[in-house]
Amino acid sequence: MLCTLTFLSAAAPAAKRPSMAEVLAASSPADWRPLDLDNTLYVEVPAGRVIIEMTPRFAPLHVANIKTLARARYFDALSIIRVQDNYVVQWGDPENRHPLPAGIGEVEPEFDAPAPAQMPFTRLPDGDVYAPEVGFSDGFPAARSATLHRAWLAHCYGMVGVGRDLNVRSGSGAELYVVIGHAPRHLDRNVALVGRVVKGMELLSGLPRGGAEMGFYTKTEAALPIKSIRVAADVPAAERSNLEVIRTDSAAFAALIESRRNRPEDFFQVAAGHIDLCNVPIAVREQRR
Amino acid sequence: MLCTLTFLSAAAPAAKRPSMAEVLAASSPADWRPLDLDNTLYVEVPAGRVIIEMTPRFAPLHVANIKTLARARYFDALSIIRVQDNYVVQWGDPENRHPLPAGIGEVEPEFDAPAPAQMPFTRLPDGDVYAPEVGFSDGFPAARSATLHRAWLAHCYGMVGVGRDLNVRSGSGAELYVVIGHAPRHLDRNVALVGRVVKGMELLSGLPRGGAEMGFYTKTEAALPIKSIRVAADVPAAERSNLEVIRTDSAAFAALIESRRNRPEDFFQVAAGHIDLCNVPIAVREQRR
Repeated sequence: MLCTLTFLSAAAPAAKRPSMAEVLAASSPADWRPLDLDNTLYVEVPAGRVIIEMTPRFAPLHVANIKTLARARYFDALSIIRVQDNYVVQWGDPENRHPLPAGIGEVEPEFDAPAPAQMPFTRLPDGDVYAPEVGFSDGFPAARSATLHRAWLAHCYGMVGVGRDLNVRSGSGAELYVVIGHAPRHLDRNVALVGRVVKGMELLSGLPRGGAEMGFYTKTEAALPIKSIRVAADVPAAERSNLEVIRTDSAAFAALIESRRNRPEDFFQVAAGHIDLCNVPIAVREQRR
Repeated sequence: MLCTLTFLSAAAPAAKRPSMAEVLAASSPADWRPLDLDNTLYVEVPAGRVIIEMTPRFAPLHVANIKTLARARYFDALSIIRVQDNYVVQWGDPENRHPLPAGIGEVEPEFDAPAPAQMPFTRLPDGDVYAPEVGFSDGFPAARSATLHRAWLAHCYGMVGVGRDLNVRSGSGAELYVVIGHAPRHLDRNVALVGRVVKGMELLSGLPRGGAEMGFYTKTEAALPIKSIRVAADVPAAERSNLEVIRTDSAAFAALIESRRNRPEDFFQVAAGHIDLCNVPIAVREQRR
């Protein structure tokens, strides 16, 4: 836990420790896994493709809904309706102009999930302000409580959540948001998170902020169209983005974390000695063949 | 400290606790102070004015340099040269086309500062991953170590720092950056922070990300011009932005923190019970007369 650690340790001699680039260069193919194509979304916007990997482990009903919506082409021709600075980008159909496909309606809240012993969870020992325990579950930043026997995804930069109104069952998956600011961890356990953006964040985070309350676009601002959202497994192989993500239970990932916790680069006079969950980069790269 | 607190406390009845909007509405004029005009910068970009308040308490030599540079009109016609997603926006003159004014050169590193007992410091009791103690010093997020007898500003969203190269004395103030992503707290104590953006963040954070290494703009990308940077005190009164900032040692600010630590709004099913230093909004508003 946080209190047992020494703060502000001086940097050890730099030559001994590899940088993140060196860790990644030294990794083996077994340290990586391909994206789960059946749970990956291609969000096509005018400037290119945003790729979201979802994990059905924490919010299976919501992930299933989103896939149903994508397969019904529900999202196509919807728009990005909200860009709130240091908070979220959001798309949806707030005026309900597009009817929901059959079977999509209220859904049980999945704001956290049971945490059985066999759930993948690589603990980050650096402590956390919000949760008793944090770490990584198969490529996603997560938190856990032994007392509650529950686990949940954490609202880090790039995480994707399901918008809802006051009704906790109202998050059908038809309205999604992406975190574009400092991790709004107060949302943890209050909203269903479904995954994270693994490529193309800059196509969302660099959008003009909306001028209305909560960053919604006004009628005179150009809402960015969503051209389409597709499940990657449904896209012809030739049109797929072939990415792989570092296995967060690998020794390479542990070394990556250490390379960021105590940066060996000459620039650093003082090593942080600790790292915040949301500051750990979960590396993604083009698939090697 | 973090370990002594109870995690995941359930929300208390909502009616008892005010929201941030209610806290601000109930605040008194004494809870606010005007910006320090002699240490405030107006950064004029094509889309409008970005306002930075500096604090000379932590990096007096760097703040003095930046004011000298602004008064020499050194920054005028420089460009934003770097926008790195989830990290920083930066402006400067990397190819040294603009000579530095007389007297501006190497400067002693001011990455932290002495922390005498009389330094304003309102402690945030919620714990922190990076520092033994965090809080607010006269409107700025800061950290402190009783062991080291040092204090420093924290790299939260919107904080403004002085770019440097490997030489710790090379940060003259001629190149500045603004944090536009999840707080890169590993930079704390490695760079001189001088202040924070109090208005206009969206004019920087919404810029297109640069396509070169580390988010630098390539030759074909349009670097955004800085029209001018002026010290607010030097600008005619009629052209000033009259803002005030909440006093971070006030009861109103303590109530604001609590309203964000345990959000009373009906949306929230679970109150966080804790808040991260960089998630506390340091409220700024138009000056009331």
